[in-house]
Amino acid sequence: MNLKMILYTLGNLLKVTAALLLPPIIVSLVYKEFNYILCFAIPLVESLLLGWFLSFKKPKNTTIFAAEGFVIVGLSWILISLFGAMPFMISKTIPNFVDAFFETVSGFTTTGSTVVADVETTFLNAHGVLFWRSFTHWIGGMGVLVFILAFMPNVGETFYIMKAESPGPQVGKLVSKVRLTARILYFIYIGLTILEIIVLVLGRMPFFDSIVLSFGTAGTGGFGIKNDSIAGYNDFCQIVIGAFMMLFGINFNLFYLIIIGKVKQALKSEELAWYLSIITIAVAAITINLSLTTAEAFGTILKNSFFTVSAFITTTGYSNSAFENWPQFSQTILFLLMFVGACAGSTGGGIKVSRIAILVKSSKREIKNLIHPNAISSVRFEGQKVEDSVVRSIKNFFVLYMFLFVGCLLVVSLDKYDFVTNITAVASAINNIGPGLGNIIGSTGNYGGFNIASKLVLIFAMFVGRLEIYPIIIMFNRKAWLNK
Amino acid sequence: MNLKMILYTLGNLLKVTAALLLPPIIVSLVYKEFNYILCFAIPLVESLLLGWFLSFKKPKNTTIFAAEGFVIVGLSWILISLFGAMPFMISKTIPNFVDAFFETVSGFTTTGSTVVADVETTFLNAHGVLFWRSFTHWIGGMGVLVFILAFMPNVGETFYIMKAESPGPQVGKLVSKVRLTARILYFIYIGLTILEIIVLVLGRMPFFDSIVLSFGTAGTGGFGIKNDSIAGYNDFCQIVIGAFMMLFGINFNLFYLIIIGKVKQALKSEELAWYLSIITIAVAAITINLSLTTAEAFGTILKNSFFTVSAFITTTGYSNSAFENWPQFSQTILFLLMFVGACAGSTGGGIKVSRIAILVKSSKREIKNLIHPNAISSVRFEGQKVEDSVVRSIKNFFVLYMFLFVGCLLVVSLDKYDFVTNITAVASAINNIGPGLGNIIGSTGNYGGFNIASKLVLIFAMFVGRLEIYPIIIMFNRKAWLNK
Repeated sequence: MNLKMILYTLGNLLKVTAALLLPPIIVSLVYKEFNYILCFAIPLVESLLLGWFLSFKKPKNTTIFAAEGFVIVGLSWILISLFGAMPFMISKTIPNFVDAFFETVSGFTTTGSTVVADVETTFLNAHGVLFWRSFTHWIGGMGVLVFILAFMPNVGETFYIMKAESPGPQVGKLVSKVRLTARILYFIYIGLTILEIIVLVLGRMPFFDSIVLSFGTAGTGGFGIKNDSIAGYNDFCQIVIGAFMMLFGINFNLFYLIIIGKVKQALKSEELAWYLSIITIAVAAITINLSLTTAEAFGTILKNSFFTVSAFITTTGYSNSAFENWPQFSQTILFLLMFVGACAGSTGGGIKVSRIAILVKSSKREIKNLIHPNAISSVRFEGQKVEDSVVRSIKNFFVLYMFLFVGCLLVVSLDKYDFVTNITAVASAINNIGPGLGNIIGSTGNYGGFNIASKLVLIFAMFVGRLEIYPIIIMFNRKAWLNK
Repeated sequence: MNLKMILYTLGNLLKVTAALLLPPIIVSLVYKEFNYILCFAIPLVESLLLGWFLSFKKPKNTTIFAAEGFVIVGLSWILISLFGAMPFMISKTIPNFVDAFFETVSGFTTTGSTVVADVETTFLNAHGVLFWRSFTHWIGGMGVLVFILAFMPNVGETFYIMKAESPGPQVGKLVSKVRLTARILYFIYIGLTILEIIVLVLGRMPFFDSIVLSFGTAGTGGFGIKNDSIAGYNDFCQIVIGAFMMLFGINFNLFYLIIIGKVKQALKSEELAWYLSIITIAVAAITINLSLTTAEAFGTILKNSFFTVSAFITTTGYSNSAFENWPQFSQTILFLLMFVGACAGSTGGGIKVSRIAILVKSSKREIKNLIHPNAISSVRFEGQKVEDSVVRSIKNFFVLYMFLFVGCLLVVSLDKYDFVTNITAVASAINNIGPGLGNIIGSTGNYGGFNIASKLVLIFAMFVGRLEIYPIIIMFNRKAWLNK
């Protein structure tokens, strides 16, 4: 284990963290909320000093391998969340440490679960803090380390870091150079975010709201800044956010292909076809289900079901209606969409559409093999053969995911809530959604009432989901640290 | 597809079915309930005639392969359930076809879910029918086709049938000869059942009750004959049933080893160690949880938690207390035990302890491989290396199991019940338990209120669970039938 290189990289991360704390200071200045400047200035100075100390001297041996990559990623996310929690604590908007840490992890992991019961009162005249809260989504969406890789000079051999941080089985193939890849992804990300802000402003949403809600959409995070999340905005803005959530759930490689003119190739993506099919079927099923059971207008039902399906499958978790009161069939669809998640290589969480597709195809193949034991067939995806090792690793991921899910569920079940709240709280955390089902954590609910053990386990689950298990597990593995 | 051989085997099955309808006639005679004799005599004659017709001439080509094995097993279980449902319909105890079929499938698959709200009134003075109901558990427990293989002359190459029907990844290795294996298993099964009957009678349980409840225990079925299941019997009888449930959840190969004197080898079984460890941990956790939250005596709590853990992990599903009112932590443990299930090669359902153990070990290995990418390590179980193909097939099984589980959940969610009822109803069906959580299908609940679509899907799930997926899937696969 190249400990020096790990500390050096963490030092660089802290310097970036310091830089990321500047924008909320500017926001506080703009709104003349000077009393909030110190909330950001203190962690800024602290992270800058510690970062400077840790990265003072570049190690001679910059070689890192898979184990280091995982550990760097795991520690980075914990570290940035610890510093990121300070503004909430210092500003006393969320004075309790565990709560502030929960909120920050929920932000960086793009979960969007909040401990705050009344967002509007808590963050009244604290635009800087509210900005910071949603800004963590935007930072976390693309990965905190991808950011460093894209814009910092020479941080060593970085392939393993990117591999350990990026969601989905496909990342890293876009362009052979890691750094260039990271930059291109960031430019697409920034471009789409700005586009959403412009469209929302055109839709008469206040400028500040447009910015922070676009951060939440881009990162597939979902922190609302109103107590009723998105429900209070006009229909146009709701539909725009619904559409952009869907966009940010698509593999960014496809946007890259479109930019370089390979539109046809992008549209032929099999994962995209699965993703759009699942969305279409889910929206249709929920629309029919709601039409038969409620008296609302068809247009409203269609809008709400599209918005909610988009919010759940992309794991954003904004809400514009009380889906926790929908009929069971619709709620069960939402519950399953939580696990499906968005496309690989997007900012969304969950198991990912491509993994689900390959699992389905592989299951079909297994049945075929039972009927024709001598016939050899392979799983094909995106027009090519999927290596058996990839299929195997996807199945391992699925099994481990389920094990961690039920493990977390057991701890949370020690808390005071009902089965639906517990199981959807854990599903929401591990898949980085935000809300769950039931009244406690539903569309307008919050996680403030959970006990400390539950909150810590949900924090663990959020990290597990966002970093796709391995960095978090390996970080706690003694053998990884002893590895030479 | 060797269609002639399939029909021939089904014919033999029907002749056995006819024979199995004799005991309830005898019971009706003993209790002088002559009006119930016709309920069994009619299906007896019908199945005998049809069986005789189908198996009139033995096909020249008796060769069958995997596909035929799966289809035979799938069709056999449906066929025997159709004939087995007739006594309920003719006797008008359960006049509705879907309900009677549900009850019979629940019997043969050793699930023990009932559609009958008031067992005591419905089956009043119908001992024959009540006997038949529990007798289906006992028949289903060991597998209807294993029975044929054990005691019928020459039914062809039968390895594939036994392989397709028997639960768990290990069966068929006990003795190289399939027929001998089947007979030994049956003698152990009969012996243990008689032992339980004797002990229960010594515990002052009425003779009839001892017999039918022992059938339910042996098959890990769980049909109660009182409205409160086992709660009304004395503590001694409850503990005896709890202990026998646990025994019937053990791999029968171990009993065989003990019989031939290899006690040490039997006790060294790794699956047994996992099984007993899981039971011990679960009982301890629930006992502590209940002690802290209820005012009941410690002895009662320990008895109830042992009984209930034993009932759930073995997938029997008897109840002696209102576990649906236990605290969430205890209920969540029960929910997870449903999926764990009993040992491979036992009469129990669920995913099976050995599969869970291998999944856990394999997940550990994967993490190890990520840390040391060049080290080659393999999964070891029961003192030997588990072939990669076995690990793979277990993971495939797990993935397919989860997919089928959520598919069934979606259909059942169209019904009128809440999330907890829906998810535990499907979990209960696919794992062949019986009761679920919540008030509708809890310890004293029933499935009578579900709509027809739900009942049919639960029937499907019960078959899927008992036959371990493949026979049911392949039976409905067009390609399997076209296979030459």
